[in-house]
Amino acid sequence: MRKNYLLTPGPTPLPPKVCQAMAQPIIHHRTPQFQAILKETTEGLKYVFCTKCDVFILASSGTGAMEAAVVNLLSMQDTALTVQGGKFGERWTQICKSYGINTEIIDVVWGQAVNPKDIEKKLKENPKIKAVFATLCETSTGVVCDIEAIGRVVKNSDAVLVVDAISGLGAIPLLTDDWSVDMVVCGSQKGLMLPPGLAFISVSAKAWSKVKEAKSPRYYFDLIAAKSALDQTDTPFTPAISLVIALKEALKMMKQDGLENIFARHKKMADATRSAMQALGLELFAPTAGSDVVTAVKVPQGIDGEKLVKTMRDVYGVTIAGGQSELKGKVFRIAHMGYIEESDIILGIACLEKVLAQMGYKFNLGTGVAAAEEVFLK
Amino acid sequence: MRKNYLLTPGPTPLPPKVCQAMAQPIIHHRTPQFQAILKETTEGLKYVFCTKCDVFILASSGTGAMEAAVVNLLSMQDTALTVQGGKFGERWTQICKSYGINTEIIDVVWGQAVNPKDIEKKLKENPKIKAVFATLCETSTGVVCDIEAIGRVVKNSDAVLVVDAISGLGAIPLLTDDWSVDMVVCGSQKGLMLPPGLAFISVSAKAWSKVKEAKSPRYYFDLIAAKSALDQTDTPFTPAISLVIALKEALKMMKQDGLENIFARHKKMADATRSAMQALGLELFAPTAGSDVVTAVKVPQGIDGEKLVKTMRDVYGVTIAGGQSELKGKVFRIAHMGYIEESDIILGIACLEKVLAQMGYKFNLGTGVAAAEEVFLK
Repeated sequence: MRKNYLLTPGPTPLPPKVCQAMAQPIIHHRTPQFQAILKETTEGLKYVFCTKCDVFILASSGTGAMEAAVVNLLSMQDTALTVQGGKFGERWTQICKSYGINTEIIDVVWGQAVNPKDIEKKLKENPKIKAVFATLCETSTGVVCDIEAIGRVVKNSDAVLVVDAISGLGAIPLLTDDWSVDMVVCGSQKGLMLPPGLAFISVSAKAWSKVKEAKSPRYYFDLIAAKSALDQTDTPFTPAISLVIALKEALKMMKQDGLENIFARHKKMADATRSAMQALGLELFAPTAGSDVVTAVKVPQGIDGEKLVKTMRDVYGVTIAGGQSELKGKVFRIAHMGYIEESDIILGIACLEKVLAQMGYKFNLGTGVAAAEEVFLK
Repeated sequence: MRKNYLLTPGPTPLPPKVCQAMAQPIIHHRTPQFQAILKETTEGLKYVFCTKCDVFILASSGTGAMEAAVVNLLSMQDTALTVQGGKFGERWTQICKSYGINTEIIDVVWGQAVNPKDIEKKLKENPKIKAVFATLCETSTGVVCDIEAIGRVVKNSDAVLVVDAISGLGAIPLLTDDWSVDMVVCGSQKGLMLPPGLAFISVSAKAWSKVKEAKSPRYYFDLIAAKSALDQTDTPFTPAISLVIALKEALKMMKQDGLENIFARHKKMADATRSAMQALGLELFAPTAGSDVVTAVKVPQGIDGEKLVKTMRDVYGVTIAGGQSELKGKVFRIAHMGYIEESDIILGIACLEKVLAQMGYKFNLGTGVAAAEEVFLK
C-alpha cells in the first residue's frame, strides 16, 4: 500500500468534488448550459481576484497568461521594468525580450523581496517605462512581495502594474482593485485547487487603455478578442470545458469558506511549517520575506538535497519540491497552498524528520512536529 | 429524465475510461511517474499521426497549435499561402496577418475542396511562398481535402506544408510522413476523444530547418524550447497533467482498435448519415467532397435551422451543430467522429426525423433511419 501526498507549489491536491466534476460527460461549449457555467466562474473569479474588472479564462498554463499580459500591453521597442528575484521573475524578462521589449531589470538577491522604493526610483529615472512586471510569491524562493506598496508607487506613474500571482492568488491577500494592480495573472493548479491547464488574467481600465494601443503581434492570447467574446458570454476559441466545470466547483468551495478564512488557514500552516523547520535547526531560505504559500528551506550541510526529496517521494509517498535553477540541491520547498490543511502539514514534517534522521542529520525526533502542533493549537 | 447525446464536431463524447482517468488524484509533472506517461503519450501520438517525427503536446486549444505553426515557421514579411474554404481556413489567414506575414489566399467556394493544381500554380507563380496552410477537414462545411495530392505538390517546392487536422486526425486517414506533411496540428476534443485543452503539433525535418530561421516573436509556443524539454522527457511549462493522463487512456484505446478499423468505422457512419439525409430528401452541403468526420446538410426551405438544432438539444437532449459564420441558419451539421458508433448515429437521425416532422417538413417517418440501417448492415 502506498498513499501519495502532494506538498508541492503546483500542482496542489484536488478536492474530490473537483475530481468528480471532471469525470462527468462532456458538454458542448456553445450551449446555454455552458454559458451559465462561464458566467458563474467569471463572477467567481472576480471574488477571488478581489476585482470588479473582467477576468478572462484562457486555455493555457500560467505562462500563457504572462505572455498575454506582455503582448497585450506593449509594442516592440517599448520599455518595461521587470523585478527578478527568482526563476519566475526572470520569466517576465525572457517574455519581454522575446517580443523585442526594452527591459529594465531590478535584480533582487534570491531570498529577499524587492524594495518598492527601488521601483519608484526606476520609474522616476526612466519615464518611458510603460509597465512594471512583478511577482506576488516567487515560487522558486518562497518570497512574497509587498504588492500593496508597489501598487502605491506605480499608481502615480503612467505605467501599469502587472503581477504574476500564479502562486498565491486565492491563498494569500491580493486586493487587485484596492492595491491598484492593473493586470493579475494566475494559473489553475495552485491556490485554486485545480489541475493545470487554465490561466486567468484581470484587466483594469488603465490596462485597457494600453491594450488598445499595443502593437505586439498576437492572436491566441489577444485580449480584445477575448473581451468581445466574453461580452457575449463566450470565448474566442474552444475553452477547456472540463477544467472550467471543475473551476465552478472549486470557486463554490472558496466562496463557502470565505477568502478571509482561507488566508488565515494558509498563514497558520505557513507559521507552523516555519516554526517546525527552525525547531529542527534548519535555516529558512527567506527568513524575513517568506510567503504563506511555500516555504523554502536550506538543505543542511552534509545532506544531499536531491536525495532527500527523492526519498520522501519514492519511499514514503510524500512529494515536496527541490530547488530550481541556481538553487538546485541547495533548498527544498514545502508548499502549504490550496486543498491542504493542518494534518497534511504534520505528516509532511514527520516524513521530513524520518528521512533527515535516516540521512544522519542530528536532531530529536518529533521536535518539528511538536513545534507545528504548538502553532496549530494557538 | 433527460439523457444527453453529443453529435457535435468537437467536443465529442468521452469514453468512461477517459473520464475516470481525469478523476484520479493529481500527480506532480516533474516525477518519474509523469515522465513515463509523457513518454507513452508522445509515442502514442506518433502512431496516430502516422509519423516518426516528434509530436509536441501543448496546453492550449487547437488554435494555439495553429499559431505555433505560423510563428515557428515564418518571420514578418515572409510569404505564406493559405487555402480558405470555410471558417477554419480563414483562421490560417488571420493568424498569418496578425504576425505580419504576407498572405496569398486561395479562396475556395464553401462546400468544395481545393484543387491541388491551384496550389501548384500559386507555388510556381510565387517562389517566395515559404509555407502552405491547408485544412484536412473544414469543420464549418464538412469538406475534406486531398492532402495526399497537396503533399505531392508542395514536396517539390521549397515550401513546407502545414495541415490543420484538428477535425479529422484519428478519424480519417492522414499519413503525415508518407504524404510529406511537414506540420500537422491537432486538438484533443475531436478524433482523440478527450476534453478540449490539449493541442498537438508534429514537425518534420524540412519544417525544423525553417523553425531555426524563423524570427516571429514567440515564447509560450516556441517549439525550440519544447524540443529541448522533450529531449529530456519534460515540457517547458507546466503541462495540463490531468488531460495528458486522459490522453494516455484514449491512445491506448485507439491502439487497441487499430487505425484502420477506426477509419472504417468513421467511413461507415458517414456513409450512413449521408444516405439517411438523402433518403429524407435533404441536400448535402458538400455532395462531392463530404468528409467522414462531419456532414453538413442544407436546411430545407421553410424550416428554421437554428430552431431545429435548438429543439433537438433542448427537447430531446441530442446536440448537433448549426452553421457558423456565413452558414448560420443555412446548414446543420451532424458529427460522426470520436467515441461515436452506429447506435449514436441512428438515434441522432431519429431525433432529426421527429423534429423535422414537428416543424412541418414532409417525408415518411423512419425513411432516414432505414437508409442508415441499410448501410450499417452492408
